[in-house]
Amino acid sequence: MKLSDRLSRLGTETAFAVSADAATFGAKGNKIYPFHLGDIDIRTPLNIIEAAHQAMLDGKTGYDPSAGIPQLREILADHIAGSRGVSYLAENICIQPGGKPVIGKFLNVIMNPGDGVLYPNPGYPIYESQINYLGGKTLPYGYIATDEGFKIDRDKVESQMDSHTRIFIYNNFQNPIGAESDEEEMSWLADLAIKNDLWVLSDEAYFNIRYSGNSKSIVSFPGMIDRTVILHTFSKTYAMTGWRLGAAVGPKPVIDAISKLNVNDESCTNHFIQYAGIEAITGDQSGAGQILAALRSRRDAVIEDLSAISGMIVAKPNTTFYLFPDITDIYHRMNSKSLEEFRLNTLYQTGVSFCTREHFGKPQPGERQKFIRFAYSGISVEQIREGVAKLKNYWESF
Amino acid sequence: MKLSDRLSRLGTETAFAVSADAATFGAKGNKIYPFHLGDIDIRTPLNIIEAAHQAMLDGKTGYDPSAGIPQLREILADHIAGSRGVSYLAENICIQPGGKPVIGKFLNVIMNPGDGVLYPNPGYPIYESQINYLGGKTLPYGYIATDEGFKIDRDKVESQMDSHTRIFIYNNFQNPIGAESDEEEMSWLADLAIKNDLWVLSDEAYFNIRYSGNSKSIVSFPGMIDRTVILHTFSKTYAMTGWRLGAAVGPKPVIDAISKLNVNDESCTNHFIQYAGIEAITGDQSGAGQILAALRSRRDAVIEDLSAISGMIVAKPNTTFYLFPDITDIYHRMNSKSLEEFRLNTLYQTGVSFCTREHFGKPQPGERQKFIRFAYSGISVEQIREGVAKLKNYWESF
Repeated sequence: MKLSDRLSRLGTETAFAVSADAATFGAKGNKIYPFHLGDIDIRTPLNIIEAAHQAMLDGKTGYDPSAGIPQLREILADHIAGSRGVSYLAENICIQPGGKPVIGKFLNVIMNPGDGVLYPNPGYPIYESQINYLGGKTLPYGYIATDEGFKIDRDKVESQMDSHTRIFIYNNFQNPIGAESDEEEMSWLADLAIKNDLWVLSDEAYFNIRYSGNSKSIVSFPGMIDRTVILHTFSKTYAMTGWRLGAAVGPKPVIDAISKLNVNDESCTNHFIQYAGIEAITGDQSGAGQILAALRSRRDAVIEDLSAISGMIVAKPNTTFYLFPDITDIYHRMNSKSLEEFRLNTLYQTGVSFCTREHFGKPQPGERQKFIRFAYSGISVEQIREGVAKLKNYWESF
Repeated sequence: MKLSDRLSRLGTETAFAVSADAATFGAKGNKIYPFHLGDIDIRTPLNIIEAAHQAMLDGKTGYDPSAGIPQLREILADHIAGSRGVSYLAENICIQPGGKPVIGKFLNVIMNPGDGVLYPNPGYPIYESQINYLGGKTLPYGYIATDEGFKIDRDKVESQMDSHTRIFIYNNFQNPIGAESDEEEMSWLADLAIKNDLWVLSDEAYFNIRYSGNSKSIVSFPGMIDRTVILHTFSKTYAMTGWRLGAAVGPKPVIDAISKLNVNDESCTNHFIQYAGIEAITGDQSGAGQILAALRSRRDAVIEDLSAISGMIVAKPNTTFYLFPDITDIYHRMNSKSLEEFRLNTLYQTGVSFCTREHFGKPQPGERQKFIRFAYSGISVEQIREGVAKLKNYWESF
């Protein structure tokens, strides 16, 4: 059966294989400590659920406009403008079935085949997959571990730029690293984008998942709002991953083109869940507060216990629900031949399941440190304590 | 602002402009009779709404697998296999956010740039838009009005075929025409597909919207199940257009590739609405029965009244909720210069809003008859009677 040639360029999220390994090992009666999941094991707040239910009962079960219902577009424009310190109108918002569709649609609208696209590696693997699928040129950039946390490798960015470079994909509040830019790094990026006439896709999925300080968006730098599309999602803040509700936020011509893609691709986003989106933004925020408090407790527990393991280097991010520990020393003590071997040996000896750096892009030339990714959105504090104790016991036996 | 070159190949549904014209005219205080809508003005049955609500309360608010929840895939496989007289397994089903995504994803998976794709014209405009967007060669085929209803123009199909022709898009239970194939026509298509090694996209959105007789699918012909992908949707049968719940049904390699596209495009379809899909198929069917009964009453009313208009030729389809009347005689009596002029004059004089043949593809060389499309899914019997009386009064004044 001959399928299309373009499929050979399509990547995927290899982290699914980690879930499958954990499930298989668990099905044999072994206890699993799931640090691999990017999902949240907390139900959506009840007021949001009831808003969707009421909208269904009110007959919001037919089609809605391809860009979303006007009320949600307006409320979201105000909400995002307010938190970013800029001005947006409803016409700058296109509702999507999740945040992820913004990646492919943005590239469809902005990128021609052959255009260069800078994107994070380690990073969310769908960036690279969609760039390749749509015929772009992949220009991965990495991060450098410093005493103040991870910093974008500016030399790597600048050395790859040429006249065909057109897009910078920026994932502040970064998955898998948990890094965020300081003011100086964001200023560097804004200058780079303006000087080189780049578009920026600013993936702000974790903008509201932060434990101290304030989030800042690249759109708040002068000149950036006209060359930036924000990927916005309800998934993390309100534990709505399975609802598939997000938005593209950007200049009107781009939003109009994305809306036209919606007409072609899926008509519109589910109608009644958009009323739940309105409740999420304008209603009682105690649910979001409880989600963030739960994540904070987990973060503190996992960092405390991981830090006590000999040879482990772990930063304490203020955002996301990910940690990106440097386990180079442990890796070598175990005489590991690969990160996959290290991951699977650890899973089979402790039940602790996690992704590694290799699930977030191909390691780049010169990379010597070994990293793994811990997600704490799908595991309780009690299970964190128990699982990391097993890790400590196992890893310190080498 | 320079956007990507590929956007110049992207079409849309021009019927939205008809909605806008009606809304503008209505906003001036004029009464509108909406025969242009492809949506259903009936709320989803309550048992289906409550199943979604319960699933939310049960915490089905996180991610689900990219191909859909296993239970729905299994139930849908049995359901579609049973009604088509073939065998399908869960692995043959990929849940989608609506039926429409199947069009683009099928073409992504099967069609290479330059491949020829036969598709109906008049037909659903997204076929042509996606073929062009993805670089295929458009090969439109029409229908011939006969005493037994509309028949596929086989000469047009066969005269366009060459060694690059790879796909036949087949919309039995056709929008906008309301046509369906008899056994002989389906047999011809099956022979054509097998002889020429064609893939078939069988858009079966209206498979269950029928008023007498039984629907048959092209997959039930020998050898066709291995070369056909069915576009399935919950939208019409259960008045769930705004839920965005559908599926691609086909050979496993195609379904696997579509699932991989899901991972890249939107991760998965909304989790909890898939439990509503299970209730729709396995639960109380009285809601679906009431929807079909309402549509039947409307169909009978609109056909009865339209048929009484001088110069109007209207067939009585057994499926869909569309009529495709031949208004050539009235068009010429009114000295119309274009179908747009005919449509707008009628709207402004009567308030009756409808689409024309031109909203479903570019008229082909040699087309002399003039057609309009009446949808009766969004208007009550009472309003049908009132609106068509105004039409009769206006059109017979010429």
